[in-house]
Parts: sequence; C-alpha cells; structure tokens
Amino acid sequence: MKILWINPVGTDGFDGIIGTILKDSAAPGTEVDVVSLPEGRPMHLEYHAYESLVTSDITSIVYHLAPRYDGVIIGCFYDVGLREAREVSGKAVVTAPCQSSLAFAAQLGNSFSVLVGRKKWIPKMEENVRMYGYGDTLASMRPLELGVYDFQADVNKTAKIMMEQGKIAIEEDNAEVLILGCTIEFGFHEKMQDTLGVPVIDAVAAPFKMAEMLASSARLFHWYPSRKWGGEPPPEKELLDWNILKGDPPIGNLLKHKDI
Amino acid sequence: MKILWINPVGTDGFDGIIGTILKDSAAPGTEVDVVSLPEGRPMHLEYHAYESLVTSDITSIVYHLAPRYDGVIIGCFYDVGLREAREVSGKAVVTAPCQSSLAFAAQLGNSFSVLVGRKKWIPKMEENVRMYGYGDTLASMRPLELGVYDFQADVNKTAKIMMEQGKIAIEEDNAEVLILGCTIEFGFHEKMQDTLGVPVIDAVAAPFKMAEMLASSARLFHWYPSRKWGGEPPPEKELLDWNILKGDPPIGNLLKHKDI
Amino acid sequence: MKILWINPVGTDGFDGIIGTILKDSAAPGTEVDVVSLPEGRPMHLEYHAYESLVTSDITSIVYHLAPRYDGVIIGCFYDVGLREAREVSGKAVVTAPCQSSLAFAAQLGNSFSVLVGRKKWIPKMEENVRMYGYGDTLASMRPLELGVYDFQADVNKTAKIMMEQGKIAIEEDNAEVLILGCTIEFGFHEKMQDTLGVPVIDAVAAPFKMAEMLASSARLFHWYPSRKWGGEPPPEKELLDWNILKGDPPIGNLLKHKDI
Amino acid sequence: MKILWINPVGTDGFDGIIGTILKDSAAPGTEVDVVSLPEGRPMHLEYHAYESLVTSDITSIVYHLAPRYDGVIIGCFYDVGLREAREVSGKAVVTAPCQSSLAFAAQLGNSFSVLVGRKKWIPKMEENVRMYGYGDTLASMRPLELGVYDFQADVNKTAKIMMEQGKIAIEEDNAEVLILGCTIEFGFHEKMQDTLGVPVIDAVAAPFKMAEMLASSARLFHWYPSRKWGGEPPPEKELLDWNILKGDPPIGNLLKHKDI
Amino acid sequence: MKILWINPVGTDGFDGIIGTILKDSAAPGTEVDVVSLPEGRPMHLEYHAYESLVTSDITSIVYHLAPRYDGVIIGCFYDVGLREAREVSGKAVVTAPCQSSLAFAAQLGNSFSVLVGRKKWIPKMEENVRMYGYGDTLASMRPLELGVYDFQADVNKTAKIMMEQGKIAIEEDNAEVLILGCTIEFGFHEKMQDTLGVPVIDAVAAPFKMAEMLASSARLFHWYPSRKWGGEPPPEKELLDWNILKGDPPIGNLLKHKDI
Amino acid sequence: MKILWINPVGTDGFDGIIGTILKDSAAPGTEVDVVSLPEGRPMHLEYHAYESLVTSDITSIVYHLAPRYDGVIIGCFYDVGLREAREVSGKAVVTAPCQSSLAFAAQLGNSFSVLVGRKKWIPKMEENVRMYGYGDTLASMRPLELGVYDFQADVNKTAKIMMEQGKIAIEEDNAEVLILGCTIEFGFHEKMQDTLGVPVIDAVAAPFKMAEMLASSARLFHWYPSRKWGGEPPPEKELLDWNILKGDPPIGNLLKHKDI
Repeated sequence: MKILWINPVGTDGFDGIIGTILKDSAAPGTEVDVVSLPEGRPMHLEYHAYESLVTSDITSIVYHLAPRYDGVIIGCFYDVGLREAREVSGKAVVTAPCQSSLAFAAQLGNSFSVLVGRKKWIPKMEENVRMYGYGDTLASMRPLELGVYDFQADVNKTAKIMMEQGKIAIEEDNAEVLILGCTIEFGFHEKMQDTLGVPVIDAVAAPFKMAEMLASSARLFHWYPSRKWGGEPPPEKELLDWNILKGDPPIGNLLKHKDI
Repeated sequence: MKILWINPVGTDGFDGIIGTILKDSAAPGTEVDVVSLPEGRPMHLEYHAYESLVTSDITSIVYHLAPRYDGVIIGCFYDVGLREAREVSGKAVVTAPCQSSLAFAAQLGNSFSVLVGRKKWIPKMEENVRMYGYGDTLASMRPLELGVYDFQADVNKTAKIMMEQGKIAIEEDNAEVLILGCTIEFGFHEKMQDTLGVPVIDAVAAPFKMAEMLASSARLFHWYPSRKWGGEPPPEKELLDWNILKGDPPIGNLLKHKDI
Repeated sequence: MKILWINPVGTDGFDGIIGTILKDSAAPGTEVDVVSLPEGRPMHLEYHAYESLVTSDITSIVYHLAPRYDGVIIGCFYDVGLREAREVSGKAVVTAPCQSSLAFAAQLGNSFSVLVGRKKWIPKMEENVRMYGYGDTLASMRPLELGVYDFQADVNKTAKIMMEQGKIAIEEDNAEVLILGCTIEFGFHEKMQDTLGVPVIDAVAAPFKMAEMLASSARLFHWYPSRKWGGEPPPEKELLDWNILKGDPPIGNLLKHKDI
Repeated sequence: MKILWINPVGTDGFDGIIGTILKDSAAPGTEVDVVSLPEGRPMHLEYHAYESLVTSDITSIVYHLAPRYDGVIIGCFYDVGLREAREVSGKAVVTAPCQSSLAFAAQLGNSFSVLVGRKKWIPKMEENVRMYGYGDTLASMRPLELGVYDFQADVNKTAKIMMEQGKIAIEEDNAEVLILGCTIEFGFHEKMQDTLGVPVIDAVAAPFKMAEMLASSARLFHWYPSRKWGGEPPPEKELLDWNILKGDPPIGNLLKHKDI
Repeated sequence: MKILWINPVGTDGFDGIIGTILKDSAAPGTEVDVVSLPEGRPMHLEYHAYESLVTSDITSIVYHLAPRYDGVIIGCFYDVGLREAREVSGKAVVTAPCQSSLAFAAQLGNSFSVLVGRKKWIPKMEENVRMYGYGDTLASMRPLELGVYDFQADVNKTAKIMMEQGKIAIEEDNAEVLILGCTIEFGFHEKMQDTLGVPVIDAVAAPFKMAEMLASSARLFHWYPSRKWGGEPPPEKELLDWNILKGDPPIGNLLKHKDI
Repeated sequence: MKILWINPVGTDGFDGIIGTILKDSAAPGTEVDVVSLPEGRPMHLEYHAYESLVTSDITSIVYHLAPRYDGVIIGCFYDVGLREAREVSGKAVVTAPCQSSLAFAAQLGNSFSVLVGRKKWIPKMEENVRMYGYGDTLASMRPLELGVYDFQADVNKTAKIMMEQGKIAIEEDNAEVLILGCTIEFGFHEKMQDTLGVPVIDAVAAPFKMAEMLASSARLFHWYPSRKWGGEPPPEKELLDWNILKGDPPIGNLLKHKDI
C-alpha cells in the first residue's frame, strides 16, 4: 500500500521530519512518500491568499501522482483544496487533517477543542468543523497565539502554552478530547495527553491513519471515492483540448519511503 | 492486535459467517474473536424493546472482556448501547456500524443514503445520523421492506430489491454513497457497487476497519478513549459494593480467531 | 386515571417521598403508584453503564404494568429507556423528566439552564436537549458538583449551591427559566424561585403533570401513542416464541396510592 | 381554575361551538370563557395583514383579562401575537395551538405532519415549527386547499380531503402523528384517527389541555411565566403616561362558562 | 426612486434627524420621505406589547402608501411587522434593520456582534438572527444597559459604553463586524469604527441602502416581491367586504423629502 | 464608483456581453470594467479541479487591481475563491453570485430554488447555501441538465427547459423565488418571471447590484471589509520576501467601461 503526503508549501523543510513520523507509525506494508512544492510558493498557509496559491499545485500533484498511490494526504489543517483534489484522485482516497481528526475525536469522546495557532485561522476552521457536521460537539477553538514557524522554534515554550490552553479547554470549555489544529504542531501530543489525561489528536497522525484505513478498505472492499454527481471528474478530452493539468506536476521535493 | 465483535443477539447463528468476513479482511496481526449472547435473548433487534433486553449484556461483556482486547465492535446498526459500552471499555476503543459507516461515507462522497430493512427502523437511525452530525448530508433512508432474517433467506430476491432501492437512492435522492443499514445485509455490497457504480458501505466491514484503525492508533499514539467528563467510568468500589457488573459476563458463544 | 412512577433504581428509598410529592400534586381523580427495582440494581444512575443495567427492567415493567395505567413516568433525568418503554406501553403514555421539563420551560420563558449534578452528566443530557429540539434555547448546563445522594444529604448546603449556580445561570447565561436536572433535586424549587424570581422546574413534578395531561387527553380525545412506523411494538408471537418479556416484571417495591 | 379562549376574529360565530368543545373536555373544576373581537376585525386570519389587525386586540384583552384567569389561549394556529400576549399576561399562562400541538406530537410519536388549509399558510407555520425546535421531526406540511370557512361548510368533503392528505402524510412522508393546522379544523380528529390509525392532534384541544396543565402547575408549584429578561412586562407607569393599553379591551362577545 | 421610512412610534421626534441621515446618504435620484404614527402610540418599542400596538399601523401605512413608493423601511430593529407589511406592499420592496444589517455584516466579515440596548431585547432579536439564517455566525448579543431614549441623551456616555462593549465583542467574542441593534443608536458608528478598527453597521443606514438597492433592482430587473404562496396578498374584495385596511392610514407626521 | 467584474475563465468570450449587461444596469456614476484570464485557463469551471486552476489568478487580480476599484465581483456561482479574494481586497468589497443572489431572494420571498446546470454542481452549491445560512429556506436545487456552454447555444431550448424546471420548483417544491445558478444563465430571467410570476434572480445582476450597494456604503459610511481576525491580510513583508503575488496579475483581457 502506498501513501503520498503532500506538504503544500514551497519548502522541503518539513518533508524529512513528517516523513519520519509517518514511517514510524506506518502499518506493515505501508510505504509513504512525501512531496512538497517548488520554490516560489508560500512557506506556510496561514493566510487564505496563500492557500489560493497552492490549490492548483495540489490538484495537479494529485491528478498526476494519485494513480501510483492508494491514498493521498493534504498536509494542512485548513484541508486546503480537499474537494478539488478528491475530484481528480481516481481510485486513490484523499484525506486531510481537520476532517480526519474530527472523525477520531468523535470516536474517543463527546466533545473536543481545537488548539489553533492564531485567531486568524478560526473562522475558516470553524466553518469546516460545522460543514463536516461537528458544530454541536465543538467545545472551543483556542488560539495559542503562535504562528506556524513558532511551534518548533522553542518547543519548551510551545509545550507550555499548549498545556495551558489545553487545560483551559478541558476545565472551562468541557472538552473531552483535544485536537492540534496544525500539522506543524507535531511532537507535542504524547506529553500533553500524559499530563492532561485526555487524548490529544495529532494532525499528522490522524489523516495518515485515516488514509491507511481507507486505502486498505479500498483494496479489500473496493470502496473507491464516489464518481457520481459531485464526485464526477473532469473529462480527459477537455483536459487535453485545453491543455490543462498536463505537463509535469509542480514538485519541489519528492522524498521516497526508502530515503526517509 | 485483538478485536472483539459482539453479536448482541441470543443466537450464535451469525458468529461463523461474520467471523469469516472479519478474518478475511483483517490486517496482518489482527486477531478477531466473535461473541454472542446466551439463549433467551432476542434473536434480532428490530424492536427497541429488544435492544433494551441486551444493553446490560453488552455493557457486561465489554466491562469484562475489553481488558483483553484493543477494540470492541457492537454488531447492530442501531449502535445499541454504544455510549454505555464506551464508558466501561477502559483502554479499548468501541465502534459501531452506524457511526463508522457514516465516517467512511463522508470520506468517499458528498451525500449518502441508508438502505434499511423496514420503516420501523428509520426514526432511531435517522436520529443517530443527526446526532453524529450527518443530518445535512443524508440523502435518504430507503426501506427495503425486509426483516433481519429475510436478508439472507433468498439472496437473489434481496439483491434485486437492494439494487432497485439503491438505484432510486442514487438517481432520485442524489446519493453518492450507499450504506447498508444492518449488519446482516452482508454479502451484497460488492455486486451492488459493481452494478451501481458508487461505493456501498458494508455495516460489518466499516466498524471493523474503524476499530482496527483506532486500536492501532491507540497502540501507536496512546489515543485511548477519553475518561474525562462524560467518559468517566463508574467507580470500582461502587461496582463491588453493589455487586453489579460482577460475576461472569453473559456469553452464549465465544468463537476464537483460530477456530474461525 | 392511574399513573405509575418508576424509580429505576435498586432501592425503595425514594418511593415514599416521591409518592408523597406526586399525591400532593395529583389532580382530582388521579391515582399514582410508585414502583422501584429489586435489589441488585444500581442505587443511582449517574453512569451510563448503570443505565444499561436497568433498561430491560423499565421495558419489562412498562410492558407488564402499562395496561393497568393511563400513564407511566420514568424517574430519571437521563430519560433512560424512554424510546424503548414507549414501544411497549400500548395505550399508556410514557413521559420522562428531561423532555417534559423542556416542554414546560418553553411555555414559560425564552431560554433555560439546567442545574445538573456533575459534569459527567452533561454530554448525554445536552445531546437529549438537542435531540428534543431545544438546542437553540439552552442557555447553559451548570454542574452543582453534587452526586445523586448528596442532594438530600445536607439540604442547606444543596440549597446554597443551587441558589448560587441558579443566580449565575440567570445573570450570566441569561436563563429565564431554571430546570433541576435530577429527580432527586426535589424539594428545592419553591424556595429557589421565591428568591431568584424565575420559574424553577422540578424534575418530579414536570413529567407527572405532563403524564396527567397526556393521559387525560388520551381518555378524552383518544390520543394514544402512535403505533405507526417507529412506534410499532414487537409482535406478541415473537415474544412468546422467544419467551422474552414474559414472566414477572422485576419489581422491588410497589407502593400503591392508598398506602402513600 | 379559569381559562380564557380568545377567538381573534371579528365574529362570534365560532364562540359557541368552540366553547362547547372546551367545556366538554374540561377537567373538573375548570371554567372556560370564550371571547371574540368586535365587528370590523377580519373574519379569519389567513393573511398576515389580518393578523396585524388583531395583535393589539389580543394584547389588550390579555392585559386586561389575564388577572381574572389562570390561563389564556390564543385561538389561531399561526400562534398570532403569542410573544406579545405572554409579556402582559402577569401570572396567567398563555398557550397557542401550534406550539401546544407540537408538544403533544413529540410525546406521542417520532415525526408529524401538519394538515394546513392552503399553501399560503406554510411559510410562517413552518418557520414557527423550526423556531419551536421541531424542524427535524417535521415530516411535512400538507395543504388541503381549503380556506378557514371551507372546513365546516361541507364536512363530508372536508373529511374526505383530510383523510386523503393524512394518508399520504403517513404513507409517503412517514408521519407518525398528524396535526390539524387550524382551530377551525375541529370535529374531524376522532374519525381520522379511527381510520388512519395514528393520533390526530386537534388544534383546539391541544392548547386547551396545555393551558389547563400549565395553569394547574402554576397553582401547585408557582410556575408562573418568567418575567426575567425577554419576559419583562412594560412598566405600568409608562402605560399610564402614554395612555396605552388603558380603557376597555376590544371585546365583541364574551361567552361565559355558565352560558355555554 | 422614492423610499418611505416608517418610524413606528407615536412621536415625530425622530423624523427630522433620521430624514436628514437618509437624505445625506441617498443615491442621486432617491427621494426619501419619513412618516411616523399619530399620538397615542407607544413612544418606543422596547416591549413586545408595544410592538403589537403598532403593527396594524405599519400594515395600513404600507398598504396605502406603498403604491407611491419603490421601497419602504420599517424603522425598528425588532423588524416589527415585516412579514405582515411585505404581504401588502404590492410592487414596493420592504426592508428592516435587523435583516438588512445582517446581510451587510455577512459581506464584510466572518462573524458579528449586535450591541443592543437591554437584555430585554435579546430573545426576540436572537430568534430573528437565527430565523434569518445567521445563528452560526453570531458572535454575541451585548447589552449596553441603555434604553431607546438614553442613546441620544448623553452621547458621550453612550459612546463610551458602546466603545467598551464593542471592544469586548471584538476581543473576547471574536466579532469581526459590529451591528448597532437599534435605529436610535445612530450617530455613533463612524467614531466607533475609527477607534475599534472594524466596520460598525448602523441600523438606519443599512436598511436604507438595502431598500435603495432592491428598489433600483426592481426598476431594472422587475424583481418585485414574490406574490406566490406565503407572499400572496389578501384579496381586495375581502378588504372591501369587511371594510378593513380602508380609510386613511394612521399617519401622525409625514415629512417630505423636500422639507428635510 | 468603479467596479471590476472578473470572468475567472481563460476566454474573453463572455466579457463583452457581461460588460454590456452590467453597463446597462449600472447606477449613475458607476463605471464597470471586465477582466478575464489568459489563455491556458479552463474555459468554464464546472469541475472543482478547474476552480483550483484559477483561484490564484483571482487572488492575484484582486490583490493588484482592488486598489483601483470600489468593488470586485467574482463571476462564478460557485463563488470560487471568495474568502481568498476578500482577504487581499483592501478597502474594496468583494461579492459573488451565490451569496448575493441568496440575499436578494431572502428579501423577496420565503423560499427559493436554484436552477443549476447539472447535478455535478449541486453538492458544493448546496454546501455554500447552508454555509451562508439559507439551508432552511432552500426549496430545491433543480438541475437543467445543461452545461455552461449549452445555455446560450440554443436559447429557445434553454428557455423551455428553464421554464419547465422553474414551474416544477414553484408548484412542487413551493419555491417563491427562483435563482439562476450560473452567470452564463443570463438573458432569461425577464421572460421567466413574466411567465412564471415569481422573481427570477439573475446571477450577473445580483452580485453587481450588491457590489454597488456595498461600494456606495463604503464611500458613505466607511464600511470597508473587516480586517480583524479571519479578515487579516497577509503581511506585505512576507509577500515581498517570498516574492509571491508580485509581478503582473494574470490578465487575459481587460475590457474598460468606455469600450463596452
């Protein structure tokens, strides 16, 4: 089974560490590759304008590479370009951190809080939460007042803030599960849950295990993405006629499983 | 990894076939046992009164056996006793067909229909669907006008009816995914999806793969069921003082993985 | 008109006092009996596992006794086993504290808070509130941090805590009505409403008056519980064939109206 | 216990028959008066502009007469002026057909359809249903294509149409309970439910029994309408200063209990 | 293009100032008249009973005057009588402050808070917000603890309180837009938004520009109010037969555009 | 006042006709330019993958051109890239067809249907409708089974289909207003509403008049898009450092007002 993780940013700086996290938690037989975008793309996606600059890249990568994979993961908690990518993924499943983390949380507790970086992120993420059907069980969105590049800059400081906000989410907002609302909040969940006593869903691990499950189920039960109605992909003829989504996909770095 | 499937009915008649389905679709390393209830319990759970007669059994089995398993599955699409079982499952995850099938459907399409046995079943199942957060993407609940014991009695007839109702669900209700709303609707999904061209979620396979994923994630990431607030289990001292949930669990048949 | 109150716990310790409350507030011509469960059942239902241990008892009692009553009340604010009991109540109406209290609150004010015992209770109760349609007018669920047996242990202390939390619910959460979220919170509502100046719905009185109204309406207008679709009861033949719900109902104590 | 029914129309033509229905279904000790508006008011309220012409009358009647009654009922399924009347009802409860019928239906079945006169009525009534919290359990609004004065003009024809639409509501829309969406649809519910086999809630009886229950509970438990926040009434001084709501209330006919 | 603003109160005290505000912000070619009610009507509408006293006036004014106007505005943030007025407005559009302000807010930000006068106002206004579809994006309703006549009595004090509450709404409730929840909160929005840095929607300006837009679109595209189903007006014959809505409309003061 | 309409497709084929429609309906003083994308972009946006190929273009155009305009309109009923464009529009308002059309519909009737091209479009559009808050008043989405380039290919055929589906939407789905769910469904609304008797909202006109209103209000009242929380734009320094959104915007054709 082959899974592709997309870091939809113009840096390969996170490829190695995320690849390692994935490889370490892969099921037997799962191979995972990590791809990131070429230079010139945003280095993070905190702003929606930045998202807009990478959605065509995500679509293109999924369109071109999905045939070689069982599953693809879009590595951003905004779930950027999820609907678009799913349309062209063929038989490969596509997952994303927010939707996957919510599915985990719903199995493990009655309510959850999301620890996001900044208030900036909340409106779109909250809309996604509602859209996915979890508006009623959202205890709170709690901002850490940290940007994407702050999380790993001073991990002690980050851990301290996360612990504080997590505690408030549990005690005051009555969350039974915490979700880390950014893929770059990796590395903290274990210590948090040890200390806070509730499961802390990591935004890298959740969509990965979800992708594995879906991909494995696709092999076993032929549960491929629906191609009916909204799931219908664009016609190949049109893509050729218009010469779109053709040519090489915009890959900056492709880290193969064996090289992780 | 060990998973326990509970057939919450007073017959072992489904243990073998469901055990086989599970074993055939198990991940490497997964062992699955199947348990059913002693005689004197209802033979199916179409009526809510019947559900009430088995919820204490489910709780008791989960309380006693969960420590030996990574995950437990309640084998009824009403998701009978799910909240109660989760409370006493300790570190084992507990899944159920309806909630799990919905999570699959949401990853594979924009909307779904559930093919239920009879209209009798719809109000509770629809309430569950809303409660789990999928009210907006439910295309329809379509009754097959078949009872639990009809599904496998004349499989050609059942297949024909399922195909008819599935087609209507897709074409008229605009469902992109179908869900089979009873664990005893097993054995039909492959042919249906070949013919109808949309994924057809089987109510045995979905909660099983979900349990595997959660159990595997519990091992990897220590994402155990939240024991905070609503997830707090009853105190052992009270159970002892009152002598409840003590004594042997009500097991009619226990089919071990090796004997499947 | 005859009404049956079920204390779904394995003690008759509340039968007398609740019987007295009911008798004192009964309409002319209403007779009310109180039944509780045999020993060996949980002494309270704060945990969902405990609920699961009494649902079959409730179903059985309703199945056997409902023909002798116009209405039956399930005496627990979780509304435990309500759907199941309603299925087998024949022409008798079945009410429960949460649903009934909400109906009262909606007639008396724009929004309400529920004063529950502990945070443990909130997730299921809040889900019930949403399910019954009152999610938008719920001002708050406020825990008193008291267990079922604490309420009457030190009534001055309980009254003080209730008054404090009720005041906060009104002033900070903007509740216009308070609901006492446990049947054992009896005896406090009068003083609370005198002091706080808003109606305080008692969880014993509300389902009782609701049962009286429904039972009286059943006599007058023949508005019996719907037996269509979800309301269809199990077939008698199946019950006989399987020998379920037969034999004596699990009654620990039956306090007759004349003996209250 | 004294209850006042308001026929908010400029005719006393319905006072007698509605008075009789109420008297016949009154609890022992309940006295019921019926009041209607003076000439010059609309003869029915199918149009919202007509509603606007009687809301001040309703408010005024409630303001002036409520002190002499335990409960007041606004006799129109639009629940016209309900919020306004409740504000000035003092200790008297105020009920209305739509909200009350829904509360009955929710106790007797899982879902309901409303048989309204004309499609004209549906938008406001459906909005009310949603507002009261029953949007999820509304099976359908089915128009009979009859106006207020048609219902009793040819009762055989009306019964036939009601029976037809009721049957469709049950069989196609899966309603378990029917509600008659106009107070002038009186006289039909008994035969309908005999034939159709589901409870048929009458829009005269439902708010009356609800008013009795609330009024009786007010006497017993002092559950009076909340006067906090949104329930705060206008200050008497302002009414006097501005000379509003003063002078005789606009009563066209007052039919006393003893004269019914 | 001619627009009519209705001050639905029994004083002409606000006609001049509101007329001036409107005139100053009118598009080229827009003429705006202001009408208020005769003496004997409430001087403000903080209480719902007061609303009930003016709804027939609003309906009557709209019925009689709408033919001379392209659009009519009901000048009260409760949107009093909006459904009723729309029914008889013929080809003229009818707008109101709450619905219009929400439409503006939804175009300018992700979430909004409403600064209302007193808590009294909140339940109805919040219900309106939900009814209009903005329940999910409502950040908060914040009371200023000021009545209608307080706003302009001491504008420095009012500005201070508004600024404080607005700041809290932004910083604590995460509002991105503020709405002033009363037409008499005019004159403050400019300074507030300069200081607070978010758009502050004025309840006079918003429904006026909305009315202009709708009226202009009606001229251009013939988008008149729908007269189908719920929008069907009462039949003229009935109005004549019953002699309702006939005679002079209840106008206390009519301030013509040229006289502003 | 200057408004920019973006045709987010790789053809200038619609620029002239849409420019003409806008110019013909512009308020005095409004100038409108039309821009479309360079060759190599999709010719329509029926597929979500196509949307992904133009979102960065939309963002870039808005970022670069917004300072010269009061308002910008994204000309696609998916409202593609709306959140992203709004983030970088500075003081210019940004509107889009779906959100704007819904705001019109809500002012003109109680419920609406959207006539979309194909079922393919429905899931995303329905999600948008729910997200904007209009899920409860959506009567139906009705597909015409026509693609974007079919609408104007045989206008008689299109008109006939639209009329048929519009009639069904009104009569069977109870819509009071129709919305044309594609900007290329221009030219039909007048005849449709003449025949069908309900307002038919055109997806070109609605966002244009909305943009005019918002832009005019921005000038008058300084109601600019909120830049707080979710509305915060990316920092200029980051754009420069990363060299993104810099360089010429991807304009294929720019049709100036004077040249229309």
